[in-house]
Amino acid sequence: MTAHAPTGLFVSFEGVDGAGKTTQVERLRTYLTERGRTVVVTREPGGTELGVQLRQILLHGGDIAPRAEALLFAADRAQHVAQVITPALERGAVVITDRYLDSSLAYQAGGRELTAGDVRDLSMWATGGLLPRRTYLLDIDPVLSHGRLVHGEDRMEAAGMDFQRRTREEFLKLAQADPERFLIVDASAGIEEVWHTIQTDIETLLGAPATASTAGQAGERRP
Amino acid sequence: MTAHAPTGLFVSFEGVDGAGKTTQVERLRTYLTERGRTVVVTREPGGTELGVQLRQILLHGGDIAPRAEALLFAADRAQHVAQVITPALERGAVVITDRYLDSSLAYQAGGRELTAGDVRDLSMWATGGLLPRRTYLLDIDPVLSHGRLVHGEDRMEAAGMDFQRRTREEFLKLAQADPERFLIVDASAGIEEVWHTIQTDIETLLGAPATASTAGQAGERRP
Repeated sequence: MTAHAPTGLFVSFEGVDGAGKTTQVERLRTYLTERGRTVVVTREPGGTELGVQLRQILLHGGDIAPRAEALLFAADRAQHVAQVITPALERGAVVITDRYLDSSLAYQAGGRELTAGDVRDLSMWATGGLLPRRTYLLDIDPVLSHGRLVHGEDRMEAAGMDFQRRTREEFLKLAQADPERFLIVDASAGIEEVWHTIQTDIETLLGAPATASTAGQAGERRP
Repeated sequence: MTAHAPTGLFVSFEGVDGAGKTTQVERLRTYLTERGRTVVVTREPGGTELGVQLRQILLHGGDIAPRAEALLFAADRAQHVAQVITPALERGAVVITDRYLDSSLAYQAGGRELTAGDVRDLSMWATGGLLPRRTYLLDIDPVLSHGRLVHGEDRMEAAGMDFQRRTREEFLKLAQADPERFLIVDASAGIEEVWHTIQTDIETLLGAPATASTAGQAGERRP
């Protein structure tokens, strides 16, 4: 990492599976690219070569102790920030990441032996304190998002649905605690309506809708 | 992890490569097994299934950011403690590990963007504060240990040798800062002399040389 402050714009998308993140990330990429911005789309876990290996381990690696799991997600994030996000911001790019540290907070904290404070401290250390300028929380009732994932048929058992509900609540709490960074978007609306909300916001962030400005839209570093 | 205090005995071996750790670990294993103790010999990185995967990544994984590397070593350690060390101590075993958190402190801290305090905090969080009851530091001048590794011929370039010297100094500082836990053993002596020093100490730790006592020789948990 260099000593320069990043000059690009860093945004993240968060929300439960099926909320429509992939669709909106692609919309935003196309929109910004057509306006002449350099856009880097990435994701966690798995946004680097190391991250792909860790993602394999995290998704298929068998019995992983809770602290080990939290440390692996943090390692993925540290590599992602050092190799992808910070260099792109320093080149003036818009970096859009599908999940970032809020996913760790919403999914890992709560119910296990880890505290939310522990997980947050790990992530903040891993990233050197780099937070997105904007986080779009695509918020949806898990009954609806699950319907989308399995094309209308509900195969999810009650326990799984409870977990999705708790995760949604965690995301909403995080958003309410940091309203300057988060924009909560009602993801039960149609794709066009969701996109319109995001488009309006990104235009405000970039200063002017049709201009390819690269000045002063960095992510934030907090201690 | 359960709420029970471990009842076994936890010891670690530390030192630069070529100091003779493997030989002495095997001596100690044989000695204790012959006296009726259950002995678990393990190592870092790589003491668990997850650890073997992480070891591959750490040794051959290409360009890894310093913070990501520190988090991977900590993840390996967290899994090692949760899956191997703590369960064995709870069964009353003697656990002997070839490297533990002091190796992270001696090798990772110093010269990079990480502080020793950061690396220590990560490790202590990963292990839930579990420290060995005894750490044998096999201390040797890197010129001699390197001679052992390459059978007398010195192929190591000056920069590598400087690194080994700094690492040795870091290990010695750690030992001097915690004399209750560490025993510094002069590893330039012959195998029998080194073993005699360790044997005398382990007999003291176990209370009586020929008795298979399992009472009260746990590792320590520090906050």
